[in-house]
Amino acid sequence: MIYFTSDYTAGTHPEILERLQATNLLHTAGYGSDPYTRNAATLIRQACGLDEDVAVHFLVGGTQTNATVIDGLLARHEGVIAAESGHIAVHESGAIEASGHKVLTLPHHDGKLRAEEVEHYIDEFYRDETYEHMVAPGMVYISFPTEFGTIYSLEELESLSKVCHSHSIPLYIDGARLAYGLAAEGCDVTIKDIARLADVFYIGGTKAGTLFGEAVVVPNRSLLPHFFPLIKQHGALLAKGRLLGVQFEALFTNDLFGRIGRHAVELATRLRSAMVSRGYRIAVESPTNQQFFILPNEVVDRLSKEVSMEYWGPRGECESTVRFVTSWATTAEDVEQLIELL
Amino acid sequence: MIYFTSDYTAGTHPEILERLQATNLLHTAGYGSDPYTRNAATLIRQACGLDEDVAVHFLVGGTQTNATVIDGLLARHEGVIAAESGHIAVHESGAIEASGHKVLTLPHHDGKLRAEEVEHYIDEFYRDETYEHMVAPGMVYISFPTEFGTIYSLEELESLSKVCHSHSIPLYIDGARLAYGLAAEGCDVTIKDIARLADVFYIGGTKAGTLFGEAVVVPNRSLLPHFFPLIKQHGALLAKGRLLGVQFEALFTNDLFGRIGRHAVELATRLRSAMVSRGYRIAVESPTNQQFFILPNEVVDRLSKEVSMEYWGPRGECESTVRFVTSWATTAEDVEQLIELL
Amino acid sequence: MIYFTSDYTAGTHPEILERLQATNLLHTAGYGSDPYTRNAATLIRQACGLDEDVAVHFLVGGTQTNATVIDGLLARHEGVIAAESGHIAVHESGAIEASGHKVLTLPHHDGKLRAEEVEHYIDEFYRDETYEHMVAPGMVYISFPTEFGTIYSLEELESLSKVCHSHSIPLYIDGARLAYGLAAEGCDVTIKDIARLADVFYIGGTKAGTLFGEAVVVPNRSLLPHFFPLIKQHGALLAKGRLLGVQFEALFTNDLFGRIGRHAVELATRLRSAMVSRGYRIAVESPTNQQFFILPNEVVDRLSKEVSMEYWGPRGECESTVRFVTSWATTAEDVEQLIELL
Amino acid sequence: MIYFTSDYTAGTHPEILERLQATNLLHTAGYGSDPYTRNAATLIRQACGLDEDVAVHFLVGGTQTNATVIDGLLARHEGVIAAESGHIAVHESGAIEASGHKVLTLPHHDGKLRAEEVEHYIDEFYRDETYEHMVAPGMVYISFPTEFGTIYSLEELESLSKVCHSHSIPLYIDGARLAYGLAAEGCDVTIKDIARLADVFYIGGTKAGTLFGEAVVVPNRSLLPHFFPLIKQHGALLAKGRLLGVQFEALFTNDLFGRIGRHAVELATRLRSAMVSRGYRIAVESPTNQQFFILPNEVVDRLSKEVSMEYWGPRGECESTVRFVTSWATTAEDVEQLIELL
Repeated sequence: MIYFTSDYTAGTHPEILERLQATNLLHTAGYGSDPYTRNAATLIRQACGLDEDVAVHFLVGGTQTNATVIDGLLARHEGVIAAESGHIAVHESGAIEASGHKVLTLPHHDGKLRAEEVEHYIDEFYRDETYEHMVAPGMVYISFPTEFGTIYSLEELESLSKVCHSHSIPLYIDGARLAYGLAAEGCDVTIKDIARLADVFYIGGTKAGTLFGEAVVVPNRSLLPHFFPLIKQHGALLAKGRLLGVQFEALFTNDLFGRIGRHAVELATRLRSAMVSRGYRIAVESPTNQQFFILPNEVVDRLSKEVSMEYWGPRGECESTVRFVTSWATTAEDVEQLIELL
Repeated sequence: MIYFTSDYTAGTHPEILERLQATNLLHTAGYGSDPYTRNAATLIRQACGLDEDVAVHFLVGGTQTNATVIDGLLARHEGVIAAESGHIAVHESGAIEASGHKVLTLPHHDGKLRAEEVEHYIDEFYRDETYEHMVAPGMVYISFPTEFGTIYSLEELESLSKVCHSHSIPLYIDGARLAYGLAAEGCDVTIKDIARLADVFYIGGTKAGTLFGEAVVVPNRSLLPHFFPLIKQHGALLAKGRLLGVQFEALFTNDLFGRIGRHAVELATRLRSAMVSRGYRIAVESPTNQQFFILPNEVVDRLSKEVSMEYWGPRGECESTVRFVTSWATTAEDVEQLIELL
Repeated sequence: MIYFTSDYTAGTHPEILERLQATNLLHTAGYGSDPYTRNAATLIRQACGLDEDVAVHFLVGGTQTNATVIDGLLARHEGVIAAESGHIAVHESGAIEASGHKVLTLPHHDGKLRAEEVEHYIDEFYRDETYEHMVAPGMVYISFPTEFGTIYSLEELESLSKVCHSHSIPLYIDGARLAYGLAAEGCDVTIKDIARLADVFYIGGTKAGTLFGEAVVVPNRSLLPHFFPLIKQHGALLAKGRLLGVQFEALFTNDLFGRIGRHAVELATRLRSAMVSRGYRIAVESPTNQQFFILPNEVVDRLSKEVSMEYWGPRGECESTVRFVTSWATTAEDVEQLIELL
Repeated sequence: MIYFTSDYTAGTHPEILERLQATNLLHTAGYGSDPYTRNAATLIRQACGLDEDVAVHFLVGGTQTNATVIDGLLARHEGVIAAESGHIAVHESGAIEASGHKVLTLPHHDGKLRAEEVEHYIDEFYRDETYEHMVAPGMVYISFPTEFGTIYSLEELESLSKVCHSHSIPLYIDGARLAYGLAAEGCDVTIKDIARLADVFYIGGTKAGTLFGEAVVVPNRSLLPHFFPLIKQHGALLAKGRLLGVQFEALFTNDLFGRIGRHAVELATRLRSAMVSRGYRIAVESPTNQQFFILPNEVVDRLSKEVSMEYWGPRGECESTVRFVTSWATTAEDVEQLIELL
């Protein structure tokens, strides 16, 4: 069986595992107040071109990170604007609402929000005389790349950032798959752009080669002032916090983060070319490690015997949309083997 | 100035005020454990054709009633299905989310949900293998009449009730304006039908002539078992609870509830005929006390000098949608005066 | 039967009822944006010696007011310091916790907090290196008078206020029975002192002669910036908001508030003297409208036939503590009749 | 430096690390639906003498586990009874309250609740006529061992279990350090007793040699019916869930769990004997891996240069209480070295 189901089906990248082994028997203080975590924060700030006093927090998983950050950013009367396809709007078991906040959804365009639609929404909101009876837009959430594998251009990000700041609300970027977005073909956005345009963002570890872990970066320094107890309230505080530090140290050493992203995207691109050359239709034009194809059900059934992948939506009558995901753990052989089976 | 802004701009119906005066100096136990409240519950059960052991709770206002009932009915992993135009989805300042629950919106049809769309939604939900990562549909909320003044037919209500029960989730009816729905032209639904088809519903007092107050009826007896402390947690418990009892006693004595409904609907109908005969367009076909017309802005401006009404959505360039609402406090003279101004 | 059970067993003071009747048929905008409510706020600001720009909000009931204000004042990682006998710590069905906040209890001294104990608690809290794993003290809650009918001296209030401000946390005063506290024998605190020393406080209407209603005053102007939607989320927003305005207008006209307080305290004092002269023991030395006596059970049983009162704690073997409460609705005859029965 | 600060300062037990390495490159389904997790559940059920259909859930950390389980067990009007020294009452940053629930504290006896005091509390609660205005006791939380390292005897546990069940509320045992409790000198409780007497309990991994992870066992099968989405809402769902399965599989293979417990307790006992023989006072009589001594400050200062330990409460004027904790990572040499320094 070869695996294209997701980018979190294997353990951790060997360079990270090696560091975990090497540090395993050392004793450190808990909850992130250890030298590995401090160093990981420094490496991340450097990669992002950020000052020393910018906060970097390490949490365990993506849903929990979104719930904690959003809860920290919003006042009680505010909600979070997101695309109707956004992870927080669909796939977090109601964690955002469980913290008391409404997700204010706007239509998506291949998973993306449009700056002008966000602006229109906010403007219309405050134009309504009864707006205090409704949930105020208190921040904007986007994912980069999106749930469809698509990415924002630098211009699009700048527009969104501008809209947010002209309305005094923060822009938060969910970077669960940031590694793959930055490595995407045609991507004109760097991690420094992300750090410049977002008020808060997170660098995903779980889907980019760590066992677990997400690094929350807060370029807009006054935000999230008492974040530690919120992390704990949201179940996101790891007792052996140095495990997060050790992993992110490795991820930001010798550009492992970049190498992982490029590796996966390269294999995804190879797969897409093969699909196209065989005449299969692309469901969403994604330049990242998630690829969506519309395949005849007979092909899906044939592949299923040797390939693990995921239906994207319900199985159709004759054909179905299927998602293939590559990661650090995918090999060139895996992809060639899959291509042969097409 | 004549008032058509809403049905809660005046105080209380004289028959109710009289009862409040007559009982003002009496002492009773607090929090609803008084004879007036007990008697009001009995009168309501009788009007609804319900057994003695059906619970009737009296709360203060509509948003608070929705938040309390929905919080009581849903498990933590569940959300409430509602029309995207539903009051809980739009105009409750996020009170439902503040209690931890997501509002799962479906498209509305003149404010109404369609049974087949609800069923489709629930079926698709459980067909998705990852459904535990999403918010489970735990109940259905509808308003009768809707926010557009429209009403469900008996057949539509029966279909919705059937869909809910075949999926083992309760149907909750927000009856903030129930008086006007039951009195609507062409309405083939009685309060006994409501009580038979809903698992929980509330009979609105605030918009039907009381100073305040909503009566929550629980025909499905096993639901809401520890409701009293929830009422208190949600800020819905009135210390001088007998004020609710006294008002609902009056409302269900000599059919005041029915008289108020019919009075307001009759005047609304008269207004609509006049509008139509003058060639103005109806925005939504409503058979109840809320009427929506598309009027030229010059007419709106002229009326505004002597009539209080409400823009329904933003003012348009040449014409705007305007809402006129009648109530127990509207007189035939008010309506004739308005018609003359048209 | 004569009634000493509580101060919320009767309806409303005749002067208030008269105003409600006189304004009943008028139409006003909803939710508190009406002239009566504006005027009531002005009258309250004047009584408190506060500037025009100090916010005054009108809510429906006490528990809901506490829950809303506390939720508005606290950050998510903070809790509220209260006496272990405080209303929010005991008798609000968990409404404070339901909003996500811990009540941090300190021992009470006849219902009162001591400034030095509050200061010690806060100091110890921040001395603990692991304080971020605990709930930070984010405000102080006291009731004036307390649940035992006792009152703080001006010096005690000033000390508490000083402790709060030197630690940058607000002092919130629950004035459910403020009328009776200010009218207490030996009280050296005025409503202007309350307004000067508290950051937020509320003036209780429900227990001081209105049908319902509590006026939240915010002398510390930057606090509670987006309070309206919070009021709605907490079920505390009244559609016919002018009812609150009308009642508080009457309460602050011709010093009705002061007259009600003095009347009830005078009768309570008369009762206490009679009890003492008959040799019955006082359970708590209260100078306000709540009086607590330890009576032989035979006396309790005899009284019970003609007097409504309340056990304070469980019935003892030979004697029990009983609470008698006076209000605007208590007459001198009621008290004399009770005294005769002793 | 030798480490006695806590039992979570090192990484993971070598036998567990080996399994993580061996399985690192394998692909599995996420979120716990993998064969390792299934097998770990089976091994745990076997160790506990429980039937196949008993649910075992794997979460990431202790605070998050408590918050999730308690949120799952309590209705909205209920709180959790705990010792005032209980972890949930003190050291979870308000996570229980953040989920809407009050912690109802009772006095502790060396960290333990007493069955008769719990019973008395519940009885008194329902004897109070106004109990619906207070938070109902909905479950009992105890830790085994307690935060003071003490353990309940079998008789004490049976009494607590009996009190809970006679009042129809569940008993939940926080087993963050269960390994050390079961291995304690004089412990007459087995894991099968825990499984028989608790309705829900968790087996701590983080403090017993895993990198992270806690196994929630639900012997009372009807409880926690929709636990998966709650786990996700509480930030406790691990994407690469098999990491938890792999670790707990190792922990319950060749009795590693038992070996770790016995090893640490043996070293703790050795330390205590040495302390006593040197004349130092024991602060709490603990038979487990946490030891509390009252040491002269000069001794504390001398040790501090070479030993990492923890002040237990504030530093005293002449002497202080200090906690020493052993774990799988503590060696006999560490202890002898410490003893030499005394």
